[in-house]
Amino acid sequence: MSAENSSSTKFTYFFGSRATGENLTEGKADMKALLGGKGANLAEMARLGLPVPPGFTLSTEACLSYYKSGEKFPDGLDKETFARLATLEEVLGCKFGSSDKPLLVSVRSGARASMPGMMDTILNLGLNDESVVGLAKNSENPRFAWDCYRRFIQMYSDVVLNVHVSQFEFLLEDMKSARGKHRDEDLTADDLKELVGKYKRKVLEETSQAFPQDPKEQLWGAVGAVFRSWNSDRAIHYRKMENIPSDWGTAVNIQAMVFGNMGEDSATGVAFTRDPSSGERRLFGEYLTNAQGEDVVAGIRTPQPMSLDQKKRMNDGVKAVALEEKMPAVYKEFLKYQELLEKHYRDMQDLEFTIEKGRLFMLQTRNGKRTTQAAVRIAVDMVAEQLISKDEAILRINPYSLDQLLHPRLDPKKKGTPITKGLPASPGAVSGRVAFGTAQAEAFKAAGEKAILVRHETSPEDIQGMDASAGILTALGGMTSHAAVVARGMGKSCVVGCSDLHIRYKDKLFEIRSGKEKIIVKEGDQITLDANSGEVFLGVIPTVTSELNKDFEILMGWADELRKLKVRANADTPHDARIARQFGAEGIGLCRTEHMFFEADRIDAVRSMILAETQEERERALESILPMQRGDFTGIFREMKGLPVTIRLLDPPLHEFLPHSTTEIEALALKLGVSFDRLDNKTKSLHEHNPMLGHRGCRLGVSFPEIYDMQARAIAEAMIEATKSTREPVQAEIMIPLVMEVKELRMIRDRIEKLVHGILDKAGLGKQVLIGTMIEIPRAALLADVIATEADFFSFGTNDLTQMTLGISRDDSNRFLPEYVDLGLLPEDPFSSLDQAGVGQLVRMGVERGRKTKPDLKTGVCGEHGGDPRSIEFFHNAGLDYVSCSPYRVPTARLASAQAQLRSNRN
Amino acid sequence: MSAENSSSTKFTYFFGSRATGENLTEGKADMKALLGGKGANLAEMARLGLPVPPGFTLSTEACLSYYKSGEKFPDGLDKETFARLATLEEVLGCKFGSSDKPLLVSVRSGARASMPGMMDTILNLGLNDESVVGLAKNSENPRFAWDCYRRFIQMYSDVVLNVHVSQFEFLLEDMKSARGKHRDEDLTADDLKELVGKYKRKVLEETSQAFPQDPKEQLWGAVGAVFRSWNSDRAIHYRKMENIPSDWGTAVNIQAMVFGNMGEDSATGVAFTRDPSSGERRLFGEYLTNAQGEDVVAGIRTPQPMSLDQKKRMNDGVKAVALEEKMPAVYKEFLKYQELLEKHYRDMQDLEFTIEKGRLFMLQTRNGKRTTQAAVRIAVDMVAEQLISKDEAILRINPYSLDQLLHPRLDPKKKGTPITKGLPASPGAVSGRVAFGTAQAEAFKAAGEKAILVRHETSPEDIQGMDASAGILTALGGMTSHAAVVARGMGKSCVVGCSDLHIRYKDKLFEIRSGKEKIIVKEGDQITLDANSGEVFLGVIPTVTSELNKDFEILMGWADELRKLKVRANADTPHDARIARQFGAEGIGLCRTEHMFFEADRIDAVRSMILAETQEERERALESILPMQRGDFTGIFREMKGLPVTIRLLDPPLHEFLPHSTTEIEALALKLGVSFDRLDNKTKSLHEHNPMLGHRGCRLGVSFPEIYDMQARAIAEAMIEATKSTREPVQAEIMIPLVMEVKELRMIRDRIEKLVHGILDKAGLGKQVLIGTMIEIPRAALLADVIATEADFFSFGTNDLTQMTLGISRDDSNRFLPEYVDLGLLPEDPFSSLDQAGVGQLVRMGVERGRKTKPDLKTGVCGEHGGDPRSIEFFHNAGLDYVSCSPYRVPTARLASAQAQLRSNRN
Repeated sequence: MSAENSSSTKFTYFFGSRATGENLTEGKADMKALLGGKGANLAEMARLGLPVPPGFTLSTEACLSYYKSGEKFPDGLDKETFARLATLEEVLGCKFGSSDKPLLVSVRSGARASMPGMMDTILNLGLNDESVVGLAKNSENPRFAWDCYRRFIQMYSDVVLNVHVSQFEFLLEDMKSARGKHRDEDLTADDLKELVGKYKRKVLEETSQAFPQDPKEQLWGAVGAVFRSWNSDRAIHYRKMENIPSDWGTAVNIQAMVFGNMGEDSATGVAFTRDPSSGERRLFGEYLTNAQGEDVVAGIRTPQPMSLDQKKRMNDGVKAVALEEKMPAVYKEFLKYQELLEKHYRDMQDLEFTIEKGRLFMLQTRNGKRTTQAAVRIAVDMVAEQLISKDEAILRINPYSLDQLLHPRLDPKKKGTPITKGLPASPGAVSGRVAFGTAQAEAFKAAGEKAILVRHETSPEDIQGMDASAGILTALGGMTSHAAVVARGMGKSCVVGCSDLHIRYKDKLFEIRSGKEKIIVKEGDQITLDANSGEVFLGVIPTVTSELNKDFEILMGWADELRKLKVRANADTPHDARIARQFGAEGIGLCRTEHMFFEADRIDAVRSMILAETQEERERALESILPMQRGDFTGIFREMKGLPVTIRLLDPPLHEFLPHSTTEIEALALKLGVSFDRLDNKTKSLHEHNPMLGHRGCRLGVSFPEIYDMQARAIAEAMIEATKSTREPVQAEIMIPLVMEVKELRMIRDRIEKLVHGILDKAGLGKQVLIGTMIEIPRAALLADVIATEADFFSFGTNDLTQMTLGISRDDSNRFLPEYVDLGLLPEDPFSSLDQAGVGQLVRMGVERGRKTKPDLKTGVCGEHGGDPRSIEFFHNAGLDYVSCSPYRVPTARLASAQAQLRSNRN
Repeated sequence: MSAENSSSTKFTYFFGSRATGENLTEGKADMKALLGGKGANLAEMARLGLPVPPGFTLSTEACLSYYKSGEKFPDGLDKETFARLATLEEVLGCKFGSSDKPLLVSVRSGARASMPGMMDTILNLGLNDESVVGLAKNSENPRFAWDCYRRFIQMYSDVVLNVHVSQFEFLLEDMKSARGKHRDEDLTADDLKELVGKYKRKVLEETSQAFPQDPKEQLWGAVGAVFRSWNSDRAIHYRKMENIPSDWGTAVNIQAMVFGNMGEDSATGVAFTRDPSSGERRLFGEYLTNAQGEDVVAGIRTPQPMSLDQKKRMNDGVKAVALEEKMPAVYKEFLKYQELLEKHYRDMQDLEFTIEKGRLFMLQTRNGKRTTQAAVRIAVDMVAEQLISKDEAILRINPYSLDQLLHPRLDPKKKGTPITKGLPASPGAVSGRVAFGTAQAEAFKAAGEKAILVRHETSPEDIQGMDASAGILTALGGMTSHAAVVARGMGKSCVVGCSDLHIRYKDKLFEIRSGKEKIIVKEGDQITLDANSGEVFLGVIPTVTSELNKDFEILMGWADELRKLKVRANADTPHDARIARQFGAEGIGLCRTEHMFFEADRIDAVRSMILAETQEERERALESILPMQRGDFTGIFREMKGLPVTIRLLDPPLHEFLPHSTTEIEALALKLGVSFDRLDNKTKSLHEHNPMLGHRGCRLGVSFPEIYDMQARAIAEAMIEATKSTREPVQAEIMIPLVMEVKELRMIRDRIEKLVHGILDKAGLGKQVLIGTMIEIPRAALLADVIATEADFFSFGTNDLTQMTLGISRDDSNRFLPEYVDLGLLPEDPFSSLDQAGVGQLVRMGVERGRKTKPDLKTGVCGEHGGDPRSIEFFHNAGLDYVSCSPYRVPTARLASAQAQLRSNRN
């Protein structure tokens, strides 16, 4: 199908049946690329015989053609669309723009992936001065009809004609005060009719054009607006965040209107087939009577529960009225559909429905967003229910989202009293500074601080602010409100519907009113969200690690059975080592010895070592560091008993250990008993223009072999001590950093190997130490075949390898890297996810060449990419033996490894 | 032949004939690897029937075996050696250690390449208390015999037994004062006999061992000392300097003694078959009567000329006695041999000879060291003489030495009056600070200053000092003295035999005494050597560029005919461009636009541009820079008319253009009319941790496209102006620096291409601008196939590519790189000569992948490696189209390219 040759392209796809039962549906669920998610699922439901209001979808190809031809509708689209409209009129027995039986439609965007950044919906399209009369007559409810018309003008003008919604809200407010009314509902049909007249004049005033009366003109305006919303700033931002290609385009769904706002026997609602927060297998949803769909999502009124069971579990459920009580028959019918859809899609569904005068219509089904915790539980449950296989269960969990599971909880002992409570919409616990808008949230983030975005409710305009924040708190909205859905998708802690919260944007503060007390919190104040309970606290409250639940352990067990890539952790202390083991690390892939150097009780010994002017002085200082290092290593070896521990010898340039300000230098000179000048000169003499490319890594080992001698000795002696207590052989691996040339590796290796083996031999221990190297300089990857002759293992240091291969200093990259990603010059930050095209070539080269020399060469990764799922898949495919990442990322890496294995099995 | 299996290895090679004429010679000239240069050439001369004292060579394999087995002589070496000695005794009719007809031998080292760092010679070995009597009898000269013995003990003890020569010199001085004699020659045979006794007691005192009387013990002592001298510090230093592998080893030549010190009918000398300084075709040499060989080389007595012609050309030749006058028959015989040897070796020869009682012996021939000027002349002459081909002529010139030719001369207008004059031993002109020893010379060098090493005479101990100095001045010695030979080899300016020079090492000064005047020059004072004339000046005298002579032009013409690799120059100004053309550059490969930014009259406009806070402000500042850049480019285009000019757009980070000290910032703020704080903040905000990997290159073009716009506009407008005056189409090539990704190249390219073509089109000029990129980030080489889609050419920036591929900041490398080279971890400074193993892979990859996309992609190199001959050969083999280097290196590059072509033709 070619979008170029538009005359032969089919752009529209019908869904729905004739009254005769003849099913006219053309699309189905697997046509998401062409019809978008919403369109494909509407077709699928129609195909299954569910009560879907009929309609048709304009395909994504129409959108792409629109952009290709410079924002013009492709040839033939109008003819096809009008033919579809004719079928629709025929099926429903009504007519577009008719004052008798008017056809009203909704126009909704629907891309392949759900995209909150895009225009969502225009309702009631087809209303004009004539058809509003027909609607009033047919509904026997003129107030409803004029309200629909009023809403349509407002929505259409805002989205299509660029007349901001506030312009109409002013008019509405004026009308209410003129009439002395407080609520919209109190306005009469005549009031609304008058308001429609005012709305139309406002449009004429603002656009110099009358509000379009021709329903077809309305339709093309709406379709064009949907197409253009694909390239709105918000949509682009969201795509970037979610890695959605910009050449997918969006489809447009044009569907007959049904009305949940036709009275108390009408309603609209959303529901999940399982609990999206916990994953429990029970219907979970909310509805509002006499409302249009957007009212639920927007969170303006407090919605009601679906089932009696759900009502029971609510805090203040007594006042609530479940749909199960209110409309038992409809509820039963709905139960049938939701079960059918979950089985059909073999996944938890997020459903939208409308009840028009007691008649149920299904408006949407899609795989529901869920918390990670819920995702894990649902996947594990569905395996038990034989709906899906273990492999599918593994593939269903987004490894990036596991962070969320492992997010710390508030320390229960330190929680204190909350100032208020809302709905726990997206779990976790987080502290940060209050921000009332995107700009402020981004400012806090840029300053290296965490922000908590506090809003009445959120809308797609807040996406960037939510992205910049660590947590989200809203006063309005339920568990399915915009804030809740988006936060869960982002894996951010979120509390919604916190009704005590009174925000005064203008004064940049919010008040909590509970009883007599009034608490005022200003922008920039620290608060803490416990999004597991919904509680909000003043100040910063310490957190503790989440325990991993049973479902998670089961899923991880499946993943561990599958994956070939081992997962280790980067850990510098016995404490880190313990956490790493708890999270399932199979060893330590990077133990940075310099972190031990920085500890307060030893930094001065390190500084004396650096200030030493002769080898003897240096050795004396090293003697005092030796027992400390030995102690650290012993502790780590004990924690990791039996598992491999890779220790990297000293890496950073020596000047990192010295103070730089005059005051600090003065203080240290006094403390160490050396002259200010000597210390100052040393600091200056160690200054480097480009320390990243300077005198560090094994270059220090070449210049000052006694430093590496001390470290090797500490390792060997710690091995002996640890073996004594654990009675398990220690698997120590000594790693030489920043090697660029086999000769430097050989020189250092020879020296420390002799030393370590000498010590171990004396203690009657075998030669169980491996000596390997980091591959973190491009030259080392290029010469991996030669370097492998002296290395027992390779560990790719992809942080430095990225810096050198791309010529980007990570410390300085903020001046241009964000712009590069914004402009699309780089697909993402290469320090977050491996640059597979460039750095990846060197990693593959390093593995292949190294193994050419030593077929059983052990290879791993210890850069931060070791915890990034996309990068992990690359490392799996490149044939690495293990990845090493921060302890909290270990589960992510285990899952990502299993997924990589599954995907490579398929190929 | 295996050195491992020593019992079956042949370690010794005889040279010489029996009295019957039977030639026993086993070696020949092409066995240098096994016999060393000296041994192979002795064998060759013996083979040719020249009068060579017979002897034999212990092969380099014997030396390597010695080292392999931990400094032990290999099995079987003794048996073989004694068999050779027996033959030698038989041939000569004398006996080792005999008191009747004693065999005396010299023991000399001889490696594959001449190595001044090694032990040279022990003479008269075989003398002991008995054989000295035989020598006295046979020579009929007891004084001579005892003097030989005395010298032997001194030399042997110094070299083999580690009793320093000064110990013996004290005894000699004592003896002379006791006898009231001034010169050694005045001592009688009895005096010397007594002295021998004292010498032997000194040896016993110092070593607790009697001086060895057994000639065989003496022999093994001497052979071991030669072997060990291969690994002396000096030898190792020399090898490093000259890139001689340490696993070559040295041979040992054991040869029957002949005596140039048997009276006035005896002599010893050295000669070159052509003038080693100018290359003129005439015998040039020096001899001393009644002297041993070392006396000439050491430069202690002033030697005499070989020919009458040579005598005529001497400044003070009147007093001299040419060998041609002194011993006409011997001279004639010598003439015959030297002609034969030059024809045989097809190269200028450096000969050593001894005349023993009127009989001529040839002791050495080898290709003579020469100045570059001489090398060029000799090569060109020998082609005319049909001795060698043009190809051979080209291959004979060391391209590294061409620098010497292009070294500046003293500005004739500014020369003034010299304070003294010596012999112009190695040409050029240089100024520097007086240093009297190695330590001081190295200290000046380390401080970034030039040193002139001033010595009575130089010895191998001074090699490091000479290496550290820019020029050498000696009071003693002739054109073939140690200083002269080594300086020519190093390509350093050198003046020798400056007899007015009186050095007082202790007082760290020298005096020049001429007539009544006395000039005192202290260590650290600046002097200037004009080593083309031999004149010495006080202070620093400006220099001018050497003109290239006719021979050079002929040779370059041959090179240009041969080579395929084009040679361009790096030039930033019309002046540089003119010099580049004079030296034969075929275009400009790198014109750095930022150098123009730094000029005093425009730097402030550049700074205003940087301080601009809006795009408009920036554009205003750029408007004022535009005409200056346009003017620069116009000038360069005019100079290079018709030849390609590659202009690199702005590359360095902006902070390089701002001042950094508080005083400078204050001054500038005042000048620009901005506040100190604003300027200071800007400077601080632009600070980078690793500027090498920071916001520079095309990253500036991405952030501030208006800067590149201005530069592109300046180029296009300059093309129009230059075309008007030269009426030749300008070949402009715009080069985008620091590209890592095709998208950034595409974005910048699209923008400037449109701009430039717009301007050129308006002027009616074609689209003759190429737009290409530097390949200087490893990723760019890895992704060269993709990048080539947007590049008309690649220019490898091997400076930055080396920094990033090796992870070495050039600015910081001095802290460890010298140590790396010293330890042999890197073969040489990778910024001087391309790291072919590492960076070279990326260059090859870049060319291959780029050409896969665009078979006719133009590729070049513009790093400093473009002027390094070894690197040039690599670039030739990698298939590059051109190299670009500094204008002065252009001839070097032209020659190196031709040599690379010749060598690749052979393969």
